[in-house]
Amino acid sequence: MMSDTHNTAPTRFIDAHIRYAYRRFGASSCTPILFLQHFRGGLDNWDPLVTDGFAKDRPVILFNNAGVASSGGEPADTVSGMAKHVVSFIKALGLSQVDLFGFSLGGFVAQQVVLEQPNLIRRVIIAGTGPQGGEGMASFAPKVAEHATRETPVLEDFLYLFFSPSETSQASGRSFWQRRHARLEQDIPSSMAAMRAQAAAIAAWGEVPKAGRYGALSAIRQPVLIVNGHHDIMVPSINSLILQEHIPNATLILFPDSGHGAIFQYPDRFVSLARLFLDE
Amino acid sequence: MMSDTHNTAPTRFIDAHIRYAYRRFGASSCTPILFLQHFRGGLDNWDPLVTDGFAKDRPVILFNNAGVASSGGEPADTVSGMAKHVVSFIKALGLSQVDLFGFSLGGFVAQQVVLEQPNLIRRVIIAGTGPQGGEGMASFAPKVAEHATRETPVLEDFLYLFFSPSETSQASGRSFWQRRHARLEQDIPSSMAAMRAQAAAIAAWGEVPKAGRYGALSAIRQPVLIVNGHHDIMVPSINSLILQEHIPNATLILFPDSGHGAIFQYPDRFVSLARLFLDE
Repeated sequence: MMSDTHNTAPTRFIDAHIRYAYRRFGASSCTPILFLQHFRGGLDNWDPLVTDGFAKDRPVILFNNAGVASSGGEPADTVSGMAKHVVSFIKALGLSQVDLFGFSLGGFVAQQVVLEQPNLIRRVIIAGTGPQGGEGMASFAPKVAEHATRETPVLEDFLYLFFSPSETSQASGRSFWQRRHARLEQDIPSSMAAMRAQAAAIAAWGEVPKAGRYGALSAIRQPVLIVNGHHDIMVPSINSLILQEHIPNATLILFPDSGHGAIFQYPDRFVSLARLFLDE
Repeated sequence: MMSDTHNTAPTRFIDAHIRYAYRRFGASSCTPILFLQHFRGGLDNWDPLVTDGFAKDRPVILFNNAGVASSGGEPADTVSGMAKHVVSFIKALGLSQVDLFGFSLGGFVAQQVVLEQPNLIRRVIIAGTGPQGGEGMASFAPKVAEHATRETPVLEDFLYLFFSPSETSQASGRSFWQRRHARLEQDIPSSMAAMRAQAAAIAAWGEVPKAGRYGALSAIRQPVLIVNGHHDIMVPSINSLILQEHIPNATLILFPDSGHGAIFQYPDRFVSLARLFLDE
């Protein structure tokens, strides 16, 4: 297993009522880190430089939630429902504790998991994400929605959604796209039904509550690292600051000239900072 | 020189019209990093864990601006005047390029130096600071002013001004205070005249300009690392976000449960992150 990498690790399945698809690779020491993916994303939507970077000194587990890409079952249409699948999956693997890395929608799910099952989680990294009922999270801008919901997403969608308009950022987006497609045995795409369920979950998570906005965040006791790009058009970057303000032990990192996908624009920098955080 | 540390490096003087006091220690390779100090602070107001941390792999230079503590000359009463002294000092040492680390008032000066003499500066780290005309920077709150202007500052002033009210943060403040006083041969305190000149410089820097607020920041081409605590009562933390928004190549780090002196609350973490940034 230790010699597997992002591009060679086989897709595995584990049955826990649902048949969850996952991949596991990397060092066998340290707490495993479980990756929770963005809207519509599957096992192949991570950057190998990020996954293999973490895998140098800990087990990396990539995971498709129920009904997403190669996982079985019905896609959950609430963040809370997705969190329950994450917990079932962790328990099915027989893991007593993991670190969570949640990106975008995966960051919503990570917050929910750590609130519901704090003993299962050691540390949390969340990127390109926001709190329940955050600023400007109830709906996407029309152009964002158009790119985010295209039946078969193409490079131009990711360049628009994940990267800044600068030449540098766009070039890093194209490099990411190459890395992301380097693996031969690719996961199947998520269905349109999965997209609709996730869109419903995102819209409900983004609704501003009538009372107690951000109140739940104070219950998160784990160390949390919050990362985002300078100008995120999918989950506005101000939400990263709000998370840092309300989670008691949270460190915030914002990268320059970047957007939602800053972790894929600065994969080496991100991994270096994240490993420092995980090893503190 | 390489065996000197924060606590043993002698105070040196160099004449460039003004007789500037400084200390230099650390590795002899890499670009030197020049430390620019906070309101009223002198050579001993740094944390040895921070200075010695940087000194592991680069020369560290601590510096008193004109009229501050053991430096000669009249204290400048504008940030621009202080920046001119920094430039004179760098040139007097015969250095062709340095990294700047500016804390609080030192962060204002660092911004001014990099704008006026971009070729002298390779990279910039600024902590607990804000842009010219930032949010809530024109004056201190009354209690902040009272603690910040006491004739002989005591531990309680630093605990209030630099750390959060939590037990953890206050305890880290007391540890900092011990480290900060461990050196036997201490610098003389800054005069009240230096305090008044610096206060005038801070007040003028904090004034909101009639037009072009934050416009100058876009001219900074160097990579910049911006660091602050979660809730800075001297230079409100929102200014760190504003700096990140307006400086083209700036990375922001905000630490949890901390204030203006976050770099002294998390000295090891700060140094690790800063060294990654400097070595990129």
